[in-house]
Amino acid sequence: MTMPSPSYTITLRVEAPASQRATSEIVHEVVAAGAAVMGVDVVDSHPATIVVDVTCDTVDSEHGERIVAALDALDGVRVLKMSDSTFLMHLGGKIEVTPKVPLKTRRDLSRAYTPGVARVCLAIADHPEDARRLTIKRNTVAVVTDGTAVLGLGDIGPQAAMPVMEGKAALFKQFAGVDAWPLALDTTDTEEIIRTVKAIAPGFGGVNLEDISAPRCFEIERRLRAELDIPVFHDDQHGTAIVVLAALINALKVVDKAIGDVRIAVSGVGAAGSAIVRLLLAQGATDIIAFDRHAALTAESAARDENRQWLFAHTNPTGFRGTLRQGLIGADVFIGVSAANILDGADIARMNDRAIVFALANPTPEVDPIAAGEVATVVASGRSDYPNQINNVLVFPGLFRGLLDSGARHIDDEMLRVAAVAIAGVVGDDELNSAYIIPSVFDTRVAEAVAEAVSAAHLRTHPVDERRAHDAEHLAHQVDRALRPGALGR
Amino acid sequence: MTMPSPSYTITLRVEAPASQRATSEIVHEVVAAGAAVMGVDVVDSHPATIVVDVTCDTVDSEHGERIVAALDALDGVRVLKMSDSTFLMHLGGKIEVTPKVPLKTRRDLSRAYTPGVARVCLAIADHPEDARRLTIKRNTVAVVTDGTAVLGLGDIGPQAAMPVMEGKAALFKQFAGVDAWPLALDTTDTEEIIRTVKAIAPGFGGVNLEDISAPRCFEIERRLRAELDIPVFHDDQHGTAIVVLAALINALKVVDKAIGDVRIAVSGVGAAGSAIVRLLLAQGATDIIAFDRHAALTAESAARDENRQWLFAHTNPTGFRGTLRQGLIGADVFIGVSAANILDGADIARMNDRAIVFALANPTPEVDPIAAGEVATVVASGRSDYPNQINNVLVFPGLFRGLLDSGARHIDDEMLRVAAVAIAGVVGDDELNSAYIIPSVFDTRVAEAVAEAVSAAHLRTHPVDERRAHDAEHLAHQVDRALRPGALGR
Repeated sequence: MTMPSPSYTITLRVEAPASQRATSEIVHEVVAAGAAVMGVDVVDSHPATIVVDVTCDTVDSEHGERIVAALDALDGVRVLKMSDSTFLMHLGGKIEVTPKVPLKTRRDLSRAYTPGVARVCLAIADHPEDARRLTIKRNTVAVVTDGTAVLGLGDIGPQAAMPVMEGKAALFKQFAGVDAWPLALDTTDTEEIIRTVKAIAPGFGGVNLEDISAPRCFEIERRLRAELDIPVFHDDQHGTAIVVLAALINALKVVDKAIGDVRIAVSGVGAAGSAIVRLLLAQGATDIIAFDRHAALTAESAARDENRQWLFAHTNPTGFRGTLRQGLIGADVFIGVSAANILDGADIARMNDRAIVFALANPTPEVDPIAAGEVATVVASGRSDYPNQINNVLVFPGLFRGLLDSGARHIDDEMLRVAAVAIAGVVGDDELNSAYIIPSVFDTRVAEAVAEAVSAAHLRTHPVDERRAHDAEHLAHQVDRALRPGALGR
Repeated sequence: MTMPSPSYTITLRVEAPASQRATSEIVHEVVAAGAAVMGVDVVDSHPATIVVDVTCDTVDSEHGERIVAALDALDGVRVLKMSDSTFLMHLGGKIEVTPKVPLKTRRDLSRAYTPGVARVCLAIADHPEDARRLTIKRNTVAVVTDGTAVLGLGDIGPQAAMPVMEGKAALFKQFAGVDAWPLALDTTDTEEIIRTVKAIAPGFGGVNLEDISAPRCFEIERRLRAELDIPVFHDDQHGTAIVVLAALINALKVVDKAIGDVRIAVSGVGAAGSAIVRLLLAQGATDIIAFDRHAALTAESAARDENRQWLFAHTNPTGFRGTLRQGLIGADVFIGVSAANILDGADIARMNDRAIVFALANPTPEVDPIAAGEVATVVASGRSDYPNQINNVLVFPGLFRGLLDSGARHIDDEMLRVAAVAIAGVVGDDELNSAYIIPSVFDTRVAEAVAEAVSAAHLRTHPVDERRAHDAEHLAHQVDRALRPGALGR
């Protein structure tokens, strides 16, 4: 848990005596202090002194300060300044808007802007369906947050949420060519959020809700799905659920159990927990027990909100009553989307043989993955420094690619399910083992496979999408009027 | 008014006998039909026939059809299809979102996204001012419309307005490096628009309102300026006013008159008209008469709304009563932002000697520029096919560049005025003549000059912006902690 990380990379500018030995000593001292040295660059050199930039990964901010102190203690060495790579990378933000058309001449301007653009506007006014082809709508997703449940940080507000939303937008483009724009809302009122998203919808082909706290996120998503004709997806719920199901499909293969036969204990009944349960049921799970922070849901503890009532009604067929610790006894699968360090290795040891443990609380899992791994067969977490990282990046780019490509106006549970199956399928049966149940986020096959599966699922339920066919034909007519489809023309 | 235009460029795919003569005939026929040929490309060739793509500028859609008919009438020639360059250019939209940071490795991901991004989020939560530096906010403008007054097309709705907004966003980047994102709103309710813009504001450094019909645009702008801490600018009002003032400053030099001495007739009391009057007064104009579609505003005709009341109270010091035609007699300057063809050359001839005529109705001016030019000394219009084009593109990119660069939270009239002076100043006194009172939209000096002037105006009224100074210092501390500003360090 205390390994140096590239998310804490610092560069120390150090003045030292001009000797080979001094530089070696500096590097030695940095390594001895527990940092991972990435490189040493001389930035200034004088007869008696040199100035070097030492770049290294550290554990946290306090670690950086300790390294500075250690270097300052060396003879003739002074740290001049320390800079932080993560902050430097964020200066000015992480995305930009780029024109796709040339705008260098009067000719360009009169087509892309006035007066030519008027004709395109009128064409859309006459045929609103053409907006998907003649504007950015067909490739554009709004990434919408109110900043109330950002990462594990909680309610930090819309401005502070922007770095995550920008990162998300960058990943949308990088992994699936989707143009996503972050909208961090200055309101936490459910009705106001719904109104705002509906108001900005005309220019977007989809909405990715992000980091909105439960239970408001349920109502917001439900209403927007009902009231908009573009797909709406709450990543914290369904993105997580999809990648959990993908990982579980492969983990069950590793332990040779069937999803219909296993007992699954889910810790956490918030946004992610309920979406996970829903998707597991869709895939054929039958014996799921959902635990809030106290115990398995009961009629009384589920009475608090509709979401819990739904969970209670659809889980725990055997009527188990008791705490999570008690419920884990004999369970085949543990899925935690709850809180840090609520279990230990002994709890996991009481699970059934060939247990599967997904401890996904961020940044610190429900149980230490190393302790869990000593007794369970498959262990996954949300962390990148252990095998089997459960990461939503595997989902949202490809999912929206598929939705946009197929012109889907709504998302259904089947699309979510096939997305999970597609992710699982990227890991071949011959590659599968307990340390590799889920593909790397950098595996370019993932987004492609997810997009294809989602697109195919949409087209299965809309086999003859007459409206789209009409749209395409109408537009083809406008862009490229085939006056006489001649024998020679191609 | 019927010149071929690059906004109506078509490509005709034509099958013809395989001879030099046939191709020459085709080109001849296209030219004879009044089109401007851009190029001829052979796309397919056989022993007896060839297929050529003829690209040409036409006057309008009907013109294209006539050319097709003319070619079809030639011996052995058939038009296979016709395509429209303007529509082709719009396919898929005109802007995209591009990551500014690498996202290719785990190292990249852990800095730009989780887990590293959490540290940046927390820094902003602790110091909200840092949002301007650690997110896209500092360089980002929302281009907001409700689609009710798009170009000269009127209320065509938000989706049909998108091509204009995308074009605008592209121009923001191209001319001033500003990242602008279009938001076309699915509401025309004043309060709802205000609420929506306030809700999406946290991620933006400015708001460019666009093509919102009067009188709602006045209230929307006024309220947003009062309730947001980022600059809000309604381009149809102030963009037009700025470039009109810029043109007038130079036109008055050409005719050697002073702004305080001239009588100015303004036709149009909508969004643009009132902003123009306001800015002319700020520059020292004293004798302005504002005309609605019937006559000079009177106490009665101005009673309709607050905007007209303001205009009535601040114009027409001599108490003129009568129609625009009557009011033009002896006037020095005509500025029209009203309707097509409401005046003719005889009306202009009754103006004072060395008259200035800005006929800005789009796409057809208040008076034919050629007729006006026979009697007036300086004529300008909104059209690109006559000299002196009054085009907002000269304003908005540089204006927002200056606002963002100086960290201005509000726009004042002085900033608008200096922007106009800056644009006028790009045309040197030695270059100035009646056909060149305003720089080209492609003159790269314009945005720079406007940005500098606006930025300087802000800094004059905020000479010691303590809050910004503190912000900068705080951020410098975080990004680049100068532990000891050593003698050798740089």
